[in-house]
Amino acid sequence: MTSAIAQTTATFSALKCKECGAEYELKASHVCEFCFGPLEVTYDYNALRRSVTRESIQAGPNSIWRYKAFLPVATDNPIDVGTGMTPLVKANRLARRLGLKNLYIKNDAVNMPTLSFKDRVVSVALTRARELGFTTVSCASTGNLANSTAAIAAHAGLDCCVFIPADLEAGKVLGTLIYGPTVMAVEGNYDQVNRLCCEVANTYGWGFVNINLRPYYSEGSKTLGYEVAEQLGWQLPDHIVAPLASGSLFTKIYKGFQEFVQVGLVDEKKVRFSGAQAEGCSPIAQAYREDRDFIKPVKPSTIAKSIAIGNPADGVYALDIARKTNGNIESVNDAEIIEGIKLLAETEGIFTETAGGTTVAVLKKLVEAGKIDPEETTVVYITGNGLKTQEAVQGYIGEPLTIEAKLDSFERAIERARTLDRLDWQPVLV
Amino acid sequence: MTSAIAQTTATFSALKCKECGAEYELKASHVCEFCFGPLEVTYDYNALRRSVTRESIQAGPNSIWRYKAFLPVATDNPIDVGTGMTPLVKANRLARRLGLKNLYIKNDAVNMPTLSFKDRVVSVALTRARELGFTTVSCASTGNLANSTAAIAAHAGLDCCVFIPADLEAGKVLGTLIYGPTVMAVEGNYDQVNRLCCEVANTYGWGFVNINLRPYYSEGSKTLGYEVAEQLGWQLPDHIVAPLASGSLFTKIYKGFQEFVQVGLVDEKKVRFSGAQAEGCSPIAQAYREDRDFIKPVKPSTIAKSIAIGNPADGVYALDIARKTNGNIESVNDAEIIEGIKLLAETEGIFTETAGGTTVAVLKKLVEAGKIDPEETTVVYITGNGLKTQEAVQGYIGEPLTIEAKLDSFERAIERARTLDRLDWQPVLV
Repeated sequence: MTSAIAQTTATFSALKCKECGAEYELKASHVCEFCFGPLEVTYDYNALRRSVTRESIQAGPNSIWRYKAFLPVATDNPIDVGTGMTPLVKANRLARRLGLKNLYIKNDAVNMPTLSFKDRVVSVALTRARELGFTTVSCASTGNLANSTAAIAAHAGLDCCVFIPADLEAGKVLGTLIYGPTVMAVEGNYDQVNRLCCEVANTYGWGFVNINLRPYYSEGSKTLGYEVAEQLGWQLPDHIVAPLASGSLFTKIYKGFQEFVQVGLVDEKKVRFSGAQAEGCSPIAQAYREDRDFIKPVKPSTIAKSIAIGNPADGVYALDIARKTNGNIESVNDAEIIEGIKLLAETEGIFTETAGGTTVAVLKKLVEAGKIDPEETTVVYITGNGLKTQEAVQGYIGEPLTIEAKLDSFERAIERARTLDRLDWQPVLV
Repeated sequence: MTSAIAQTTATFSALKCKECGAEYELKASHVCEFCFGPLEVTYDYNALRRSVTRESIQAGPNSIWRYKAFLPVATDNPIDVGTGMTPLVKANRLARRLGLKNLYIKNDAVNMPTLSFKDRVVSVALTRARELGFTTVSCASTGNLANSTAAIAAHAGLDCCVFIPADLEAGKVLGTLIYGPTVMAVEGNYDQVNRLCCEVANTYGWGFVNINLRPYYSEGSKTLGYEVAEQLGWQLPDHIVAPLASGSLFTKIYKGFQEFVQVGLVDEKKVRFSGAQAEGCSPIAQAYREDRDFIKPVKPSTIAKSIAIGNPADGVYALDIARKTNGNIESVNDAEIIEGIKLLAETEGIFTETAGGTTVAVLKKLVEAGKIDPEETTVVYITGNGLKTQEAVQGYIGEPLTIEAKLDSFERAIERARTLDRLDWQPVLV
């Protein structure tokens, strides 16, 4: 027991500034005191190379905690509610529709417990929060993060206060309130919510998962890299497409792949990284298009609220990765986002929220522009569930055919559907 | 390849009438021609005992298909979208609240792909439908089944037409339409929908998952027994609590436990089976209370629409199992159902739909009546997700505190919340 803790704590060693390299103790802190750069957790990769094997990972739990050696928590009892190890679905019908040959969907629309990739980062952040002695946890959220923080805090018995923009989708608000946290609906957009939370974090002794706990929290996204590598049979894909909000997810998938190469779990490979934004909030795509190396903040206006961050904290790092891996960053409008949601549902039976619709629509756009090779093993990250953003598709998916509970009423409806071209198949009579 | 198919097909051998024992070929058929009893799939348990081990199961996929030898499909390529192997959560906070010591939640609120246990039965039914040559699949549904049939049919490229009562929750209707099936909204309750579908099934050459394919379909629920046994370390629990709609789920969990005993995968144990119904549709609970061995059909009136079956096909079998295992069947009213949903969310971070609220409320009622021993290892089956029945809790979970994006506005809100007793914890200042 003691040796296991000692071994684990030994693999994450410090917080280090991504800009100037200054090192800090493993406290609740996220900004460099010298240059204001973001802090990141560092590990002892030599120790990891010696202690971690494919077999040791596979012998672990069927959750993100099979990769605990790569996550910044010391405990042997992390908060494990089954988060992670979501399906990597071979998307043959979507691939055929787009003209691709090796397409996979990493389906975090069914991540546990709250149906988005945020359950990964929150499981890590709240486990670390408990280790650091916090009894109240908080976050600035576009919705999914609030759902996840409230749910996992409830499971762990932590007090919880979350901050959201006041205009979020009904499902995201209700899907937070149900767990009994205090919910602050802020009149403003996410960037204003975030600024307020930075002030609160300075005043109150709370663990804000994506502010003072951000270096720990964000490491949870690396598991989306690890899992894809493991699920592809311990190899990296050729190309990934992921949504860009703050840019953190994108950079951490990249870090996850790199770490697996570094410790010898997979062979080195140049993976292309492509990012997806909604046109109504596309500061990173704009910088990419205009060949800038800085981000101009924007005021968001899009149905893709969960990725509507106008001033993305890790935008420049995402930009850099897309460029150096020969990837792309593209944006799509709200109509294309809705089409993206429908396309994924109709071909693969996966119902995603607006962020996932954005990613699928960008995939389609990149394929049509010849920017994805049909032969490439391409993995598309679907990060959230469509039941939370029902408003977005309501009115675009038709209506049921209302009938009486009688055979002739059914048969008239079938006939009507065929006339209206709503039925593209022929009912077979016995 | 050939031998694997031969071995698998050898383990399921016939359809057999549960009443008179008459045997039939493995076709799409569900009613005995002689006595009108329901047909069930039989297996060669001697062959299973020789060929299946704990290790062979654990070496299988992380889905229901690790138990393929116990499921009525011949193919080596079943439709696998990650269904099953949902978490068995040790529910310590809920247990403490109720005064129990060994409580587990089997969490199918996060089952894949459509967040209910129906994904299990549909994965089996559509795999079998394909084997039997059907190109169009259908169902009579209270909501979850329509979601699942539409989604998995989309993934598999099967044509799909589903039938639902016209008054279903918005999330269940939208969560079906999104996959692009034909949806028939029938003016009537589920029992009327079901009767219409029986007529359609006799006329059209469609595979109705819960009518002509019902013997195959219903076997999928056995995996909820297998998984719990495996997740408890290859042993059976002392007591299970599950919702009762048609009664099929309940009887198949029982069959699953029995089969594992019969082939030597777990030790024999008397497991108590307790069933949960909503007061507004409780024909099985009424029969249990009145010591009847027959079911009087009722007209449903409850918010728990997904279990509102007034004329339950397997009601008498469920009744029999509850009695012979020394279990119970209990019902709760709509207010208790809402409290059940909230209790589970606030203690365990699991957001379930009305059926799950029913089950948790019945658990509470049974504990309070001294009908569950605090020491018993008790497993509660949560079968669906709360995002699909948002109407049920809207108005019962409070509202966010709306604030401006300013620190003093936040602080006034915190103060107000404390005054209103909405904040039971003390914010710590740094």
